[in-house]
Amino acid sequence: MIKVTFPDGSQREYPVGTTSWDIAGSISPRLQQDVLAAGINGQIWDLMRPLKEDTELKLYKWEDPEGKYAYWHSSAHLMAEALQALYPGVKFGIGPAIENGFYYDIDLGEGVQLRDADLAAIEAKMAEFAARKEPIIRRDITKAEVTKFFEEKGDEYKLELIADLPDGSITTYSQGDFTDLCRGPHVPNTGYIKAIKLLSVAGAYWRGDEKRKQLTRLYGITFPKKKMLDEYLTMLEEAKKRDHRKIGKELGLFAFSQNVGSGLPLWLPRGTQLRLRLEDFLKQIQKQFGYQQVISPHIGSKQLYVTSGHWAKYGADSFRPITTPQEGEEFMLKPMNCPHHCEIFKALGPHSYRDLPQRLAEFGTVYRYEQSGELHGLTRVRGFTQDDAHLFCRPDQIKEEFCKVMDIIFIIFKALNFENFEAQISLRDQVNREKYIGSEENWERAEQAIIEACAEKGLPAKIEYGEAAFYGPKLDFMVKDALGRRWQLGTIQVDYNLPERFDLEYTGADNKKHRPVMIHRAPFGSMERFVAVLIEHTAGHFPLWLTPDQVVVLPISEKFNDYAHEVAATLNAQDIRTQVDDRNEKIGRKIRDNELKRIPYMLIVGEKEAQEGEVSVRVQGEGDKGSVKIATFAEQIAEEVHRQLNAWQAEAK
Amino acid sequence: MIKVTFPDGSQREYPVGTTSWDIAGSISPRLQQDVLAAGINGQIWDLMRPLKEDTELKLYKWEDPEGKYAYWHSSAHLMAEALQALYPGVKFGIGPAIENGFYYDIDLGEGVQLRDADLAAIEAKMAEFAARKEPIIRRDITKAEVTKFFEEKGDEYKLELIADLPDGSITTYSQGDFTDLCRGPHVPNTGYIKAIKLLSVAGAYWRGDEKRKQLTRLYGITFPKKKMLDEYLTMLEEAKKRDHRKIGKELGLFAFSQNVGSGLPLWLPRGTQLRLRLEDFLKQIQKQFGYQQVISPHIGSKQLYVTSGHWAKYGADSFRPITTPQEGEEFMLKPMNCPHHCEIFKALGPHSYRDLPQRLAEFGTVYRYEQSGELHGLTRVRGFTQDDAHLFCRPDQIKEEFCKVMDIIFIIFKALNFENFEAQISLRDQVNREKYIGSEENWERAEQAIIEACAEKGLPAKIEYGEAAFYGPKLDFMVKDALGRRWQLGTIQVDYNLPERFDLEYTGADNKKHRPVMIHRAPFGSMERFVAVLIEHTAGHFPLWLTPDQVVVLPISEKFNDYAHEVAATLNAQDIRTQVDDRNEKIGRKIRDNELKRIPYMLIVGEKEAQEGEVSVRVQGEGDKGSVKIATFAEQIAEEVHRQLNAWQAEAK
Repeated sequence: MIKVTFPDGSQREYPVGTTSWDIAGSISPRLQQDVLAAGINGQIWDLMRPLKEDTELKLYKWEDPEGKYAYWHSSAHLMAEALQALYPGVKFGIGPAIENGFYYDIDLGEGVQLRDADLAAIEAKMAEFAARKEPIIRRDITKAEVTKFFEEKGDEYKLELIADLPDGSITTYSQGDFTDLCRGPHVPNTGYIKAIKLLSVAGAYWRGDEKRKQLTRLYGITFPKKKMLDEYLTMLEEAKKRDHRKIGKELGLFAFSQNVGSGLPLWLPRGTQLRLRLEDFLKQIQKQFGYQQVISPHIGSKQLYVTSGHWAKYGADSFRPITTPQEGEEFMLKPMNCPHHCEIFKALGPHSYRDLPQRLAEFGTVYRYEQSGELHGLTRVRGFTQDDAHLFCRPDQIKEEFCKVMDIIFIIFKALNFENFEAQISLRDQVNREKYIGSEENWERAEQAIIEACAEKGLPAKIEYGEAAFYGPKLDFMVKDALGRRWQLGTIQVDYNLPERFDLEYTGADNKKHRPVMIHRAPFGSMERFVAVLIEHTAGHFPLWLTPDQVVVLPISEKFNDYAHEVAATLNAQDIRTQVDDRNEKIGRKIRDNELKRIPYMLIVGEKEAQEGEVSVRVQGEGDKGSVKIATFAEQIAEEVHRQLNAWQAEAK
Repeated sequence: MIKVTFPDGSQREYPVGTTSWDIAGSISPRLQQDVLAAGINGQIWDLMRPLKEDTELKLYKWEDPEGKYAYWHSSAHLMAEALQALYPGVKFGIGPAIENGFYYDIDLGEGVQLRDADLAAIEAKMAEFAARKEPIIRRDITKAEVTKFFEEKGDEYKLELIADLPDGSITTYSQGDFTDLCRGPHVPNTGYIKAIKLLSVAGAYWRGDEKRKQLTRLYGITFPKKKMLDEYLTMLEEAKKRDHRKIGKELGLFAFSQNVGSGLPLWLPRGTQLRLRLEDFLKQIQKQFGYQQVISPHIGSKQLYVTSGHWAKYGADSFRPITTPQEGEEFMLKPMNCPHHCEIFKALGPHSYRDLPQRLAEFGTVYRYEQSGELHGLTRVRGFTQDDAHLFCRPDQIKEEFCKVMDIIFIIFKALNFENFEAQISLRDQVNREKYIGSEENWERAEQAIIEACAEKGLPAKIEYGEAAFYGPKLDFMVKDALGRRWQLGTIQVDYNLPERFDLEYTGADNKKHRPVMIHRAPFGSMERFVAVLIEHTAGHFPLWLTPDQVVVLPISEKFNDYAHEVAATLNAQDIRTQVDDRNEKIGRKIRDNELKRIPYMLIVGEKEAQEGEVSVRVQGEGDKGSVKIATFAEQIAEEVHRQLNAWQAEAK
């Protein structure tokens, strides 16, 4: 018999050779139906693999990333099986599961292009093989055997992969007529795969090397239920409509120019306004929380990054150093603000324990090299502005500082309608502790401080051991947007490393020198990425306080243009951002056009309104709300903005 | 007889061989006494040089830069004469007049150092030779003769300079026993030089080449009156006290760190506050004037600067291009914002004539390489933030845009107490016009527009022909600071070049494509340099609205610390920036320390104040003002700030 320990610590005994699938069945038929893969002593296994030793067992379902991974990996194999049936002689590169679905890189031979009809045929063939519930079978064979197999098949890509593997036992998986080189794990049979959609075709260089052959990368996704696929496809459609690149262009928020360079956004006036409004909002909150703004240059001597350790770690993959025409100096484009802030902390010294914490904040623009193929709108850029701050504090202040940063993050989530978020605490590995810098005592204290801070703030947080950086534990926030997509926003990171490397110190109550602790934090993360997420979350319907244009006045005919401009002037004088659409167009057309601009309020003005000093209010997405006096409307807007911006203060009281 | 034309256009006849000095005497004895050099048909001549042809004549006095130049150049020769007498065998490099005084680079022989006593001896010798009123005599001799002279003297530096001259006639000047290779001009005799001060000694490489010998550079200044020298030395003393590097450190405004790099300022919290307050002030004004803020990256592809022409012109002397680890891209640290703004203007298009002007503003940080020896505090840095804007307008809008920019500049000068300023209009050369880009019609229109705009604003401006950039005319402001030093602040520059190079266009009323005109303008110039000038102008006593700390509360003993903090909290809640000095020090000491911190208001609080809810007000530099209620004090401060910030608006009405 073997002893099986479950995640809750309970134990049961099973005969040697029992599979995880059997065990799931022994718990409940429903579980047996839902389970997709197994965690065996920390490794992920096929469900059907017999257990021979005492085991710590986790059973992974669709909800677990490990379950999805096995499911989509099997789906990639299913797609390959279908391709092999439809395109004899097709050769295969790699075919992994990814965040959403899977892909396979394939070589269809010279000149073969996949069109939409082809994708439908492949989907049909996949469904056919899935209906057969072909068992997916794992085999350990020798390198010679597997080499022979792919030589016979004539697949030079797999042969190249095999050649790179060490001698000894190699794993393959087979189903039907298809066999692949693969570490697994997989679901038990193809019948698990119910709903299938092939999504897109792209080019991909073999092994990511642009000097080698370009293969066809075929993307797909599968689900255990048709309804889930339908929902996913609807979400994709909606995401396409909300693509921040599309909306950013429609609303005139930002632009890119090849003359300036890839991944270097140009913030247009309306985007700049919106961004600066976000920055001012945070600045004001930070002022209340005792932060001090600083400004540092966008370059620093290479030596600065040698000191910080960033040069050793990232130097080779960064923008190359900037040299001077004389004097042989070397500078780096600043990839982060922390080294500069360490120098500022030093320049502000000497520090007493009574002066801590010092909270130095900067909207600091940093530059990091990304391959041009990796760039994506504002979410993946080469230059971005962090809403950065570094808190230099005593070890006994960590908990309080965490609480305060959490307050700031909650304020932001509230003001921007991110109601759905999760938190994760990343701590040291519970066993392997050599790699962590800083004393055991400090780590223990910081980890406890974070856990206690979350408890104090009533924030349910998942604890992940082994996920801490080598220089300190951290707390991350994951926000769910309106489409249910998850975005990491807001990290609070403890750092014992930089204070050491920069030899930072303060004088304690004991009159001795001590090292401060450093806390990095950026609630928005970067202005670029945050604005992108905000656009996709709101589909460009920003909260009233933030949106570039709050009101547009639509005269029903040219005769009322003067009155429309009067109304706009009155509102603008009260800091209500108001435009006039005085084009010579029918009112219906004007309403439609301005709906698209996502302006929250349209004020329609004609004979009656001009006579009465009124405006006829139309709310974006809601329609007509009747007429009110201009002053009444202005009051309502001011109140709404005030309420949005101060919701957190109202709540804090 | 020859005909002499004076600057006012009047003409007189004089015998051939008359000197400018004679002519001055023919006008008035006073003028003959004051005149220092002559402008002869656009060249500068000695007063004693006989005139042989019809002449356009200008007579230069001390007030003219040309007059000072001759005076200080002669002073350099006088110093050389004294050195030759005191240090036989001394060899001479170059000895020019500079902005304030003159220097001579000399080789005194191995190991000879000049100490303070030596400088006094040299001054005394100079005074002795000056008292002799030695005539300074110009001679044209052959290259062979002058070579022979310096060979006999054994001065290898002069011989090297002579070797570089073309064959033919060479000019020397002599007085007493001293002869120098020199183009002149000089004052008639050494007696003109009345008040003498040698200021400092530095090292300077021969011909600026660090591989060659280091010479001794001896700086001095002279004046026609003892009183003028005394005033100058007092001003120097005062300038040393006001050195922005010294005050910047005392007030904790900014710092430099060798780890970050030379010429890259770190703005500390108090300096950042001050700077952001200036930026916000300008932003608010710009908003009222219809500017739109934009944000662009700090790098741009090299191609962008090839397009703009900056690469061809400045590329070789700039920070070297930044390359990427892959992809072979080249970026430049942005040396100016204009190319980025041209790209933004394009991204905002297509433009109609009705949409112009478009006024794009950015506090844009730019990076320009300077040799480390040239760096100086915040006035000469390698990275600085321009309060930049580019106005894209139609040719017929230039005048109005100039008027509006002038309004902004006047507002700033007013709010920052720069009451003393001059303006200069730089136009094309009146004759030589090939080098200018843009049509004759456009130039004519722009030049007239600037002249008319100045007239309309009642701004007396000096017109300088030939001082325009090749791409357009401009208007410069020169501000006199509290010590009478002149700083260039605020340039408005027309540009026909970049719109051409970036192919910018708008559709005119004629439905055809037209080129917009671009106007560059930066009222502060750069935040770094402006803050430096402001520190030196105010000696760190910033206007109340701007100063980092407005109020400090001084409890007369620990017993009143609580009340002091209460007062501070009340004031801070009303946005009055208030500190408490609760150190355990005597009140006299606290007052002295806080005087040095240049905090405008000290509030002294003790028994009586705490009981009555009052504060005892002490104004920086003025002393005790008696007790008032806290609320009354707060009102006074708010009123004073409001008055300072809105002086211009009050005036505009």
